[in-house]
Amino acid sequence: MAVDLSHHLSVETKARLANPMKTIWRLAQGKLKAGAITLANGDPHPSLFPLSRVDFHIPDVSVDDPVEAWRHGDYQEQILSTTVSGSSPLALRTAMQYCAGKGTTELCNTLQELNLVLHTDVPQNNVIFPGDNFLAEEFSYPGITNSPLCHGLNWVPVPIDSDGIVPDALDHLLETWDSAVQGRRPHVLYCIPVGQNPTGGTLPMERRRKIYELAQKWDIVIIEDDPYYFLQFDHLPSQEPHTNGVNGLNGVNGHSKQKKWIDHFAPSFLSLDVDGRVLRIDTVSKVIAPGMRLGWITCSELFHRHLESLTDSSTQHPHGWGQIFLSELFRQPPHGWGPDGFLRWCEHLAIEYKRKRDLMITEVRTGLGDDWGTFADCDVPAGGMFVWLRVNVEQHPNFASDLTASDSLLPQTNTAYLMNELFQSCLNNGVIVMPAATFAIQHQFRRPDETHMLDVRSCPVLLKREADDRAQKSNFLRLSFGGTDDAIVKGSSILVETLRKFFAPIETRLTDEEQV
Amino acid sequence: MAVDLSHHLSVETKARLANPMKTIWRLAQGKLKAGAITLANGDPHPSLFPLSRVDFHIPDVSVDDPVEAWRHGDYQEQILSTTVSGSSPLALRTAMQYCAGKGTTELCNTLQELNLVLHTDVPQNNVIFPGDNFLAEEFSYPGITNSPLCHGLNWVPVPIDSDGIVPDALDHLLETWDSAVQGRRPHVLYCIPVGQNPTGGTLPMERRRKIYELAQKWDIVIIEDDPYYFLQFDHLPSQEPHTNGVNGLNGVNGHSKQKKWIDHFAPSFLSLDVDGRVLRIDTVSKVIAPGMRLGWITCSELFHRHLESLTDSSTQHPHGWGQIFLSELFRQPPHGWGPDGFLRWCEHLAIEYKRKRDLMITEVRTGLGDDWGTFADCDVPAGGMFVWLRVNVEQHPNFASDLTASDSLLPQTNTAYLMNELFQSCLNNGVIVMPAATFAIQHQFRRPDETHMLDVRSCPVLLKREADDRAQKSNFLRLSFGGTDDAIVKGSSILVETLRKFFAPIETRLTDEEQV
Repeated sequence: MAVDLSHHLSVETKARLANPMKTIWRLAQGKLKAGAITLANGDPHPSLFPLSRVDFHIPDVSVDDPVEAWRHGDYQEQILSTTVSGSSPLALRTAMQYCAGKGTTELCNTLQELNLVLHTDVPQNNVIFPGDNFLAEEFSYPGITNSPLCHGLNWVPVPIDSDGIVPDALDHLLETWDSAVQGRRPHVLYCIPVGQNPTGGTLPMERRRKIYELAQKWDIVIIEDDPYYFLQFDHLPSQEPHTNGVNGLNGVNGHSKQKKWIDHFAPSFLSLDVDGRVLRIDTVSKVIAPGMRLGWITCSELFHRHLESLTDSSTQHPHGWGQIFLSELFRQPPHGWGPDGFLRWCEHLAIEYKRKRDLMITEVRTGLGDDWGTFADCDVPAGGMFVWLRVNVEQHPNFASDLTASDSLLPQTNTAYLMNELFQSCLNNGVIVMPAATFAIQHQFRRPDETHMLDVRSCPVLLKREADDRAQKSNFLRLSFGGTDDAIVKGSSILVETLRKFFAPIETRLTDEEQV
Repeated sequence: MAVDLSHHLSVETKARLANPMKTIWRLAQGKLKAGAITLANGDPHPSLFPLSRVDFHIPDVSVDDPVEAWRHGDYQEQILSTTVSGSSPLALRTAMQYCAGKGTTELCNTLQELNLVLHTDVPQNNVIFPGDNFLAEEFSYPGITNSPLCHGLNWVPVPIDSDGIVPDALDHLLETWDSAVQGRRPHVLYCIPVGQNPTGGTLPMERRRKIYELAQKWDIVIIEDDPYYFLQFDHLPSQEPHTNGVNGLNGVNGHSKQKKWIDHFAPSFLSLDVDGRVLRIDTVSKVIAPGMRLGWITCSELFHRHLESLTDSSTQHPHGWGQIFLSELFRQPPHGWGPDGFLRWCEHLAIEYKRKRDLMITEVRTGLGDDWGTFADCDVPAGGMFVWLRVNVEQHPNFASDLTASDSLLPQTNTAYLMNELFQSCLNNGVIVMPAATFAIQHQFRRPDETHMLDVRSCPVLLKREADDRAQKSNFLRLSFGGTDDAIVKGSSILVETLRKFFAPIETRLTDEEQV
């Protein structure tokens, strides 16, 4: 069914051997009579795990607004319990034993069912590609983009605007790609389609369709990293007064509200994927807790097989606690929240983060007053946790726009210099923000079939264009509204004061400093 | 203090960048006034984690033999509880948030204290080295040795006997290493010093000292993977009748017994390490449960720094549940087991596994009767979970010892062929065992500065010697005694019958087959 995409696999991936111990195990599983005895595996016997039970205490979500109830301590407790070998979907004896690299069958099945609800009719059900050129939004999450650099991977920045990737710019980049100078044409696109980190953009449906068509045209694999999927702010019901549970027990209203919200989501790349060229990454870090350290990848059989082999020969398998927690959580009430309860929690969580977003933008805009739009401004993110504050550096008294001759390797303006000054002032004044430079994708050219980076001087024109692009666009700060209301209000206030001083005419500033 | 070992770092390790977001965070931590506000991190606020409490139910270990009590359901329950922000060493709000790649400070401190108890006076407190040649015991654990093969790493097998690595053989291997033909001299040794997987050997103190001296002589980094450290069977007190808790509450007797047992352990490589050339890997997979998926590495500052950078840009950090569990478990009673209680659990666990070891050896020896020593035999492992059963294939009616001319690339004997036949018969008869071939380290020669494997025909003499060594020594089966008594008894019985048929004269065997 899926298109043959095996030419995308790296030399490393193709060279990876299956774990021979797991191979024997599978061989034996297929061949043996029922009741066969194994003396093969080095598994401690489950009767010797000193664990009789685990209880996870969570809030009940059957009330109208479970997030509001939880925040005010006005909630019913629900307990997810698992014992050694009781009726739990994932008993301790199974969850805490060695298991397959891909996780337990029970949990995989549960997550596949969730996929069917969210990404309707998923045709595929699971890579690391070191080597050559990959595409990423020109500002992206370094937790991911940094990691393969040491394997010699080169990231190629894709131009974005406030809605995310610009399809025409992506097409132009690939159309004008010169393999003789730039090496293999990029064949993987890493992107964060909702509440993009750091710019906050959410790709509209039309762009998603165009990007997928371009992926087909240029034979590109899409890695869809979607941690903020459940933090989408458009089409949420307005926040109603807390109803103390009346009408709250999975009532029709509650259910239809959730449907309505989710139905407005732009389709994921996974749900558009007819070729098997999408790897979708989900996580519960943002909607449950980061310490869960559990995510899942949905992809075609080809990629799934290689990911499983990678896991079998490295970290081996996900931890039992998180697998128990999710298995229990997704059980139907009264045992767990069930998918409906989970979505109800997510919806109200999105309402809460939307409120925090509005609080932050209001604080900065009100604080700047008439200078909003002159000193700084922002688009309103439709999802995620970040405001991408545009700092209008050209208003700075020391801004310089024609620093260097056009054939020089240095950028034309002092934007990067000024933004660093602003960042340092924020630190000194007691507020930490993330400057755009932290997220800038640095394109390093590479000759075809070369394992070492090109000397930057060997393609000065291309390199300068890239460096300039990123430097000119680095006049942004990423502000997180994930903290408390107090942190948002106080932090915004310090930021506003720091911006005022930053843009103050030189004479005023000198006076300020003398006063200190 | 540590010797400068930075020349051991791979190109990849040296090329790995720190995660710039974490860099900003650390910068800010050092510079800021108290009470500074962060708008930098994309952390969900802990008040929105839907978790109020987790309870891990475990057996109390203050009785004389907690393992015996647990196995018979005759135990007191103890509950490790952690709440959102209570008095726990690791509260949910901290444990379930993003944290440093190296884990929480609290748990690191706890584990360092445990190290001080076990490896006295550890001078260092935390690598993947792709590229070139590494040493491993000639039969080793493929879960580890397989994983770096796709990065082009070459394993060089070190001769072992029933006590593990033979120091003189290691010295000879390094002395006769020809870098012009074989590439860079091996500079890393991966070994399993206790209950070696698969051969069951435990390195005596004298060998450890000699191996460490050789590591200094030849500038080798030792990776000490020690999952069976707490399953050492020598010097255990004989199993006494269960005393129902009398004298069991951390009494002096209990304590001194534990001391005695541990004091007999050969020193770990870590405790011999004056240069900072040892990376010790510990895990609770064998003494708590594999699903915990938590281990720790103790090493010098150099390696620690690079491991942290690797973690920060890949899996990010250990999961919160396991960190909570261990933090609570190592608290002093009555909150947790404390180090003494943990050692008490381990000691009695070792007694239990020793009993299982003896059961398995007795079953096979008794089953074979007069043929024990003729058909098969074994050494008695002093630790771990495995019996390494020697199969005397030269007794097989079809054994051939001079198959090929000495300049051929094929092995001299049909040992490998016969052992595969035996393995298949075991499968068919309903018992799964692990053949030695699964664990054989395959030396593949590599020219210096070559990224591809040498064609095997280009150094036939060396290659043949290696292939022969491994083939001749592959007449072993790894038998796990980690299962139930019932599995051990039944599995051993099937194995004995299979061995009898395997060694039966051809005419007898034919008759058997005709009868079926």
